[in-house]
Amino acid sequence: MTGTGTFISFEGIDGSGKSTQASLLAEALRAKGHDVVLTREPGGSPGAEEIRALVLQGDPDRWSAETEILLFTAARRDHMERTIQPALKAGKIVICDRFADSTRMYQGLSRGDLREDVDKLHALMIGREPDMTVLIDMDPATGLDRALSRQGKDVRFEAFGEDLQEKMRAGFLALAQEFPDRFLTIDGARDIDTVAADVLQQVKARL
Amino acid sequence: MTGTGTFISFEGIDGSGKSTQASLLAEALRAKGHDVVLTREPGGSPGAEEIRALVLQGDPDRWSAETEILLFTAARRDHMERTIQPALKAGKIVICDRFADSTRMYQGLSRGDLREDVDKLHALMIGREPDMTVLIDMDPATGLDRALSRQGKDVRFEAFGEDLQEKMRAGFLALAQEFPDRFLTIDGARDIDTVAADVLQQVKARL
Repeated sequence: MTGTGTFISFEGIDGSGKSTQASLLAEALRAKGHDVVLTREPGGSPGAEEIRALVLQGDPDRWSAETEILLFTAARRDHMERTIQPALKAGKIVICDRFADSTRMYQGLSRGDLREDVDKLHALMIGREPDMTVLIDMDPATGLDRALSRQGKDVRFEAFGEDLQEKMRAGFLALAQEFPDRFLTIDGARDIDTVAADVLQQVKARL
Repeated sequence: MTGTGTFISFEGIDGSGKSTQASLLAEALRAKGHDVVLTREPGGSPGAEEIRALVLQGDPDRWSAETEILLFTAARRDHMERTIQPALKAGKIVICDRFADSTRMYQGLSRGDLREDVDKLHALMIGREPDMTVLIDMDPATGLDRALSRQGKDVRFEAFGEDLQEKMRAGFLALAQEFPDRFLTIDGARDIDTVAADVLQQVKARL
């Protein structure tokens, strides 16, 4: 043990079950005695949650993609400073439901060709990637059905429809190929417990 | 006339009278038949005003300097898109009380050595500088007395005291030397009407 923790993000299209799987991994690791902080983006610290509310509530078109990227990067910077880095310094495992890869996909891909700007902003103001990124891969039709059956205030991204989800799925799989050292791609189309066992096994092998 | 407007920013330490002078210049130019948009930062568009409130209200230490720079850049991006650029495209004169030079000074200088980050963010997400920047230069002791005698919610920057104002004054004068093509440095220690006449004369010479 070096005294530094492990930073694990979960990514995937809406309805893929990534939030459920992030939560189940946190439970499983806690049961084995690990000190785990489960968090999410956008948000994850008091300031970042305020920025999240500013972006996600109200008219979806009131912010341009560029302004949205700046706001999400501000929220991520706060989340890193106040929640993630202190936990990692204390040797904890941080599990984060969405991180910068979601911005690379949702703002960088779906709202214009802004991937390069997202990457430059990340390099300048955030700097670090997760140690592991668990991609819960799923067929978009299945994922969309699951997402639409849920209720909640933050439905704006889900409202973009199946074509976008297809593009997102392909984008996440391309990211997994771009960053093979940190990505674990998991087949999310199986039952929840089977997926959870697979995630736990693959994460433990790399811890 | 090319159909593109003119973008004029006002900068200076707190209490220098730059807001008053920005407003007087707007009046004087309107009286001469110009179409003028008077705006301010942080803020200047509905979205940017929301971000302004997020930054300026509450505990001054709740955001790090880096997060604050990202939030101000997000607000500036929105302000550019929604207020400044449409007005310039319509051939108007835009007068803005504070712009990126204030971020270069207040976040880039007073809250850590972040000038380089501020400049990189500006180049990446904003891109453009004002055509003219009117620097109302003033002795900090005089400026601080004036600032403290005013009332308002957004007093956090004024609360930093005279040492900071000395540093800011020197920083603004250094910026004026760095960007001589756009800076007009005006002696703000004279009476308001004399300063206003000087501003108007120098701006008109460059319009």
